[in-house]
Amino acid sequence: MPTSPCAVPLAHATRLLNHGPTVLVSAAHDGLRNVMAAAWNMPLDFEPPKVAVVIDKNTFTRTLIEASGQFVVAVPTRAQAALTLAIGSRSGRDGDKFVALGLDTLPASRVTAPLPVGCIAWLECRVIPEPHVQQTYDLFLGEVLAAWADPAVFAGGRWQFDDPETRSIHYVAGGRFLMIGEAFDV
Amino acid sequence: MPTSPCAVPLAHATRLLNHGPTVLVSAAHDGLRNVMAAAWNMPLDFEPPKVAVVIDKNTFTRTLIEASGQFVVAVPTRAQAALTLAIGSRSGRDGDKFVALGLDTLPASRVTAPLPVGCIAWLECRVIPEPHVQQTYDLFLGEVLAAWADPAVFAGGRWQFDDPETRSIHYVAGGRFLMIGEAFDV
Repeated sequence: MPTSPCAVPLAHATRLLNHGPTVLVSAAHDGLRNVMAAAWNMPLDFEPPKVAVVIDKNTFTRTLIEASGQFVVAVPTRAQAALTLAIGSRSGRDGDKFVALGLDTLPASRVTAPLPVGCIAWLECRVIPEPHVQQTYDLFLGEVLAAWADPAVFAGGRWQFDDPETRSIHYVAGGRFLMIGEAFDV
Repeated sequence: MPTSPCAVPLAHATRLLNHGPTVLVSAAHDGLRNVMAAAWNMPLDFEPPKVAVVIDKNTFTRTLIEASGQFVVAVPTRAQAALTLAIGSRSGRDGDKFVALGLDTLPASRVTAPLPVGCIAWLECRVIPEPHVQQTYDLFLGEVLAAWADPAVFAGGRWQFDDPETRSIHYVAGGRFLMIGEAFDV
């Protein structure tokens, strides 16, 4: 059973993406919603926290992001790897992808985009409008307005990946992922 | 002993960064050279392959990148974690960082920036000039001109992380890294 999201201080928001997980990106507008998978994402700034993510022109999620000016970045788990691949393999234009894939959601606090249940971290973002890079490179910049994490996996500003099933996943290609591994201090 | 870099087809270049490793970024110009650490990087496009990386204004590496229009992105290993942290903790303005840290280099094929020895992958890039995002967000976009990997760790378009010492590392904060873990297919 998924744990409820707990608030992450904005000063720690970039740590949710700093280790390079593959993410889900959700958006909603005017009664429609969608979710896509995105390996191409990174933090962009600490204060205020910002992120960058590549959103292809042919995705329905992009249509909803451009219409609403908002999106959520969520970090899925090893237990959600098949779901993540399925999310990346079908279009929300063919019907509500959440319903089709049995993916429950929770409402976000600052944006209309939903929080996919079962993920371990969520960043609520507003688009920082940069039309040139959006159009030329499919590159979207966002300011993080609120951040959440599963407290069993991220607490006190640190990941605690004890359970393999709730580890972040890092896509390679062709259906192959790498699971995040052990922590170590230098 | 480090293996010699083997050429990676440009069609596979994004796979070297797709799983979100922390990287080194090197640059050289007019007899000076430097290297920095960067957790904030991602692929940006497949064809031609492009990457995005955040390069802070106060880094000497940025001065060299802006002067030369070129950089190398390299993927360091678990064995280089302390080196990576040291690279991120000192400035090249205080003297050649490669010499100070005992980091050998190999010449690149298409750019003046050097390839740090002991890494497991290298991407030679030219800056795609985008002055507005460079100045506003410290965001640099690059086209990958050549890519290389240690064939013991990346071959046939796939990572083979058998040896823990040559696994990629994924920075969190405060001297803590996560090592990449097991591969699995969905």
